Order: sequence, then structure tokens, then C-alpha cells
Amino acid sequence: MEIREFTEDDWVQIWPIVHEVVRAADTYTYDPNLTEEAARGTWVQTPPGRTVVAVEDGRVLGTAKTGPNHGGPGSHIATASFMVDKDLRGKGVGSALCAHVLEWAKEQGFAGMQFNAVAESNVAGIRVYERLGFKIVGTVPGAFEHPTLGRIGLHVMYCDFG
Amino acid sequence: MEIREFTEDDWVQIWPIVHEVVRAADTYTYDPNLTEEAARGTWVQTPPGRTVVAVEDGRVLGTAKTGPNHGGPGSHIATASFMVDKDLRGKGVGSALCAHVLEWAKEQGFAGMQFNAVAESNVAGIRVYERLGFKIVGTVPGAFEHPTLGRIGLHVMYCDFG
Repeated sequence: MEIREFTEDDWVQIWPIVHEVVRAADTYTYDPNLTEEAARGTWVQTPPGRTVVAVEDGRVLGTAKTGPNHGGPGSHIATASFMVDKDLRGKGVGSALCAHVLEWAKEQGFAGMQFNAVAESNVAGIRVYERLGFKIVGTVPGAFEHPTLGRIGLHVMYCDFG
Repeated sequence: MEIREFTEDDWVQIWPIVHEVVRAADTYTYDPNLTEEAARGTWVQTPPGRTVVAVEDGRVLGTAKTGPNHGGPGSHIATASFMVDKDLRGKGVGSALCAHVLEWAKEQGFAGMQFNAVAESNVAGIRVYERLGFKIVGTVPGAFEHPTLGRIGLHVMYCDFG
């Protein structure tokens, strides 16, 4: 598996992954009816942000986007999001993507990375993030309407690079 | 003082308020070089969001914007931002705007309101928010580069309507 920068040709493989994730509506706070155009606008970042893909034998296994979490006086903290092909989860793709964007953000001079909205049901993701240095800063109760679990908390997570 | 919905004619009075706030860069995570066009695009909300102004004798004293904090499974929680004319702070304008948008969000059926990035130096704002029912959910350390205080924390605050 190689992780490299997004190129235009990757989108045709990324969109089915994003589409499945947003329709499932069990991890991300995206509109489940997000159009392909809006998804592309959200997912494909330009500098100072970055979008990458994890690929193996020409197949896109997963993707990540990263960039400043806020503007101006908040722009020294990065954020990131990850999506992995439904059929390939639990094999370390998300973990490799997260490690990659952390490394990139450190190289770029960011002081830390924040996740704004991690559904507390996403225990596999949270375990990966914690192993890579993230801590739960706080939890907004009931802020995520899970399709089967009902209203659950959204964690704010942070990894300090200092 | 009356608080009412934004109309096109208000922008000419809102922009100097927004401009001063973003250039000061001591409360909000906006680019201090935000253009008027970008400011307008950010500040003037359309449904399901809303922008309001606090006016007295035709003068805009302050303004607020509100709407869903996230999309899809996070869209039942509102967020809001407030800006008050520099010369009129400490007179209850921000407090009245905050109470107004809380009332509006409750009427709209939101389940709570979240603030994503409250600079911990903004003690006057935090006092108002706490009096109106907000609690600090967590603090991201050093996430705000204050022009005189250096890197300080950004609070995530939440007010539950339940």
C-alpha cells in the first residue's frame, strides 16, 4: 500500500467510498444526500490543505483530507478526515492514513491536530486516534443522530505536536 | 434596542463591525485580511441559518448569525456567532443577541447550541454564555494565537435545550 497525493484520476474511485460513508450516516456529519459535486468540493483540498489516497495495485483503498482547522489565529492547528472502502476496514488503512497526515502536518509546521466531531460509536477510529497520540478533549452530549443508536455524543479530539 | 432579521441595507453598517473584529484577531478564528465579499458570504446566512441585527434609532449596534453546526446527523445542534460595535461593548448588546438566537434555535426545534471556538481570553463573552446556560465542554490547549497573550486555549461550549 502506498499513500500519495490525490490526482484528478482518483476521484472516480473516491466518490463511491465517500458516497457509501455519507449515506450510512453513522460516522460523519455530512448530509446523507450530498451530491457528487458537493462531495468533491468538500473532499478535494487545495493548499494549505491536502488530499491523499491509499492505493494498492491501482486500487484506491481509502482517502484522507487535511488542512488548517480554523482561519487566522486558529490556523496553526490542523484537522483531518478519513474514509476507507467499506470492504477493507479493520486492515490498517485508516491507521496508515492518520499516521501519514500527522507526519505531513508536523512537517508543515502545524502545532497540533484537532478532530471536531468524532461519533462516540466509532470505537475503532477512536482507538486508532488514541494510539497515534490523540486525547478526547470533551464530548458534546447527544450531538450525533446515529441511525440505530439514536442520539450519541460527539468527541472533540486533539493531538499536540509539542 | 430591537433585534430583527438582517436586510440588505444593513450590510453597510455590519461590515465595519466585522472588519474591526477580524482585524483585531483577538476573539475569532477568521483570517484578519478577510475581504468584504468573503465576510458577507460568511456572515449573511440563508435558511436553515439566520442573520440578525440589534438596532437602535436606525443604527446597527451588533449582529449575530446562527444555523446548524454540522450537516446530516449533526444538524439538530445549532451554532452562533456574535459581533458588537467596538464602542458599544459591555452594554448588554451581545447578551441580548445571544438570548435572541437561543430563543430562535429552540423555536426551530434544535436540541442545543454549540460554540466551536471561544478564545479563553474572552472572559466577558464566556460570562454571558454561562449565564445563558452554556457550559465549557472542553478546551483545546494553545489553539488560538492571541496577538498579545500568545497561544491560549479555545473552548468548546454547549447549551442543551432539553
